[in-house]
Amino acid sequence: MVVVSSGMNVGGKHYRTIWEVDGGVEIIDQTLLPHEFKTTVLRSLRDAAHAIKSMLVRGAPLIGATAAYGIVLQCYEDASDAALQSAHDTLLATRPTAVNLRWGLDRMKAAVLPVKPAERAEVARKTAAEICDEDVALNECIGGHGLEILRELRGKKSGTLNVLTHCNAGWLCSVDWGTALAPIYKAHNSGLPVHVWVDETRPRNQGAGLTAWELGQHGVPHTVIVDNAGGHLMQHGQVDLCIVGTDRTTARGDVCNKIGTYLKALAAHDNGVPFYVALPSPTIDWTVQDGLREIPIEQRGAEEVAAISGLTRSGKRETVSILPKGTQVANYGFDVTPAKYVTGLITEKGVCPASEAGLSRLFGRKNG
Amino acid sequence: MVVVSSGMNVGGKHYRTIWEVDGGVEIIDQTLLPHEFKTTVLRSLRDAAHAIKSMLVRGAPLIGATAAYGIVLQCYEDASDAALQSAHDTLLATRPTAVNLRWGLDRMKAAVLPVKPAERAEVARKTAAEICDEDVALNECIGGHGLEILRELRGKKSGTLNVLTHCNAGWLCSVDWGTALAPIYKAHNSGLPVHVWVDETRPRNQGAGLTAWELGQHGVPHTVIVDNAGGHLMQHGQVDLCIVGTDRTTARGDVCNKIGTYLKALAAHDNGVPFYVALPSPTIDWTVQDGLREIPIEQRGAEEVAAISGLTRSGKRETVSILPKGTQVANYGFDVTPAKYVTGLITEKGVCPASEAGLSRLFGRKNG
Repeated sequence: MVVVSSGMNVGGKHYRTIWEVDGGVEIIDQTLLPHEFKTTVLRSLRDAAHAIKSMLVRGAPLIGATAAYGIVLQCYEDASDAALQSAHDTLLATRPTAVNLRWGLDRMKAAVLPVKPAERAEVARKTAAEICDEDVALNECIGGHGLEILRELRGKKSGTLNVLTHCNAGWLCSVDWGTALAPIYKAHNSGLPVHVWVDETRPRNQGAGLTAWELGQHGVPHTVIVDNAGGHLMQHGQVDLCIVGTDRTTARGDVCNKIGTYLKALAAHDNGVPFYVALPSPTIDWTVQDGLREIPIEQRGAEEVAAISGLTRSGKRETVSILPKGTQVANYGFDVTPAKYVTGLITEKGVCPASEAGLSRLFGRKNG
Repeated sequence: MVVVSSGMNVGGKHYRTIWEVDGGVEIIDQTLLPHEFKTTVLRSLRDAAHAIKSMLVRGAPLIGATAAYGIVLQCYEDASDAALQSAHDTLLATRPTAVNLRWGLDRMKAAVLPVKPAERAEVARKTAAEICDEDVALNECIGGHGLEILRELRGKKSGTLNVLTHCNAGWLCSVDWGTALAPIYKAHNSGLPVHVWVDETRPRNQGAGLTAWELGQHGVPHTVIVDNAGGHLMQHGQVDLCIVGTDRTTARGDVCNKIGTYLKALAAHDNGVPFYVALPSPTIDWTVQDGLREIPIEQRGAEEVAAISGLTRSGKRETVSILPKGTQVANYGFDVTPAKYVTGLITEKGVCPASEAGLSRLFGRKNG
């Protein structure tokens, strides 16, 4: 049993991003944020797969947790070996890049398949709950280790620390606390003055819509910038460090994260700005070495680039097209930042260099 | 008298971006593109200043030309020294970064002030027309020199050449042809197979809205990507070269261009992709050496980041907010790409290294 402290609040009330309810599991529909806070109950494998594929839930840890509950929901309906294998395959196909997805599903299978079908639902439920509790505990540890980095920088500089982040690797991408934002929440909670530059993160605007929202709910000072602006800020000394998350980290420390992360890492390198990646160890894919050559990059639909959703002045949700009709679009979801541009990896076990040696020291040699 | 060939078409009809009409000057309202092609007549200094400030016209060369016609319109009304000085100051304040603005205004003053007020309108009109014709001729020369670079790359590679560009440095930013896109139009017209990766260019989406539109009107194959994607494409050999424009080039070859240009230059450098900047020489500011330290960067309104305009499914123009209410925003218009990341400058006099020596060789030593 993992004991966790309470994490992030919405409107003064503590929430996780996923929790059990009678006959199902409840999530926050993140596609409606930042304009509307609404939860929805998943009651079937199909609901869970849809929630992942359509990004009602997103972020590597939360995808893993939701997939785990997808298996639970399948067990409620039909816990046969065939049904579970089919559920596993369906869930695995929802987001090809997220390694937590496979990790979560493998763990569920390993827990559930050895027991009799009649007992599987209960074992599955217990395992999924453990996955969630462990994620929260991991993120709290990441937050603690990251806080040490911020404290050290604070020792060298007076005034507010400026942290740049890309996409959303916060509370909303995990079960609680977040990965890249966990050190920031810890710093803010401990009275260390911190300000966050929030990359908008086109095409899905997770920075503008989610990171800005959750930082705002928690009262952390932040400023939204377009993805193009971070280099300029770093050139002018306005960024003290970068912290981003990762969807997949290779055994030698290459980092596959939201498209555009690589460009920020280059700018950080060019300007001597520390560039950290925060990750729970399930994000490490020990079977992959060279991220650029080995990680397939998900291509998503053109409409994510061609059209943008938001609120009209009259408060109506609306989607507008920003391209000439019929324009061809390419939409790569992720890019790979080579380990050489990563100052360090902030994991639940501590901070290490982004290298095989660094990861092996913390986690033991697991690759191959 | 400069002789120019005809340039870009809209719907089969040749247009420049600015042309004289009775008692005024007509422009294309670029804020309505790509959804609507509409021209508007400027009839006063105030109209011209508004057109520049509100970006009905944008792009360094077209800003210079419009400012020149702003002086013409002032002369129609009141051609006194005091009125012209006030017009000069008003126009100069519209966009602080564009060096062509100052260049165009200085040239107008030098032409107009020495003659009697009664003759000033005609001299101003003639000078503004010369500025426009010269811009077209310069851009045609840039196109020709850039075409040589593309031809050389074509010699090393079979198949289509992939060029990445940022923002809009095309026909719409100049009087005709464009700067960065001039070589691409020349290549396309000469049968050399070329495909353009068009950066969306947040926050104002000049790539998505303008570059995609004008390339489409001319039939040049292109694909729109988010600003985050270019690094990934370069890592995977999908970009043969980058060509961008510039709002201001320093005497030693630093390039001040649309925010985000610097990030693409870093990625090009990291992946051995040639990174060229196309510019007519009026864009060179011989009084500035160190672009990072000396060029003030325009900060624009938060609403450009917070809200995006486009067409709804029902064909209505609408603006949607993408941020949580009250979110703080920073909006820097430009960044500086240090000369060391620029492979070469494509000017009307030829291609040179981005250095004091390179520029001096082409233009003679003018700095200081």
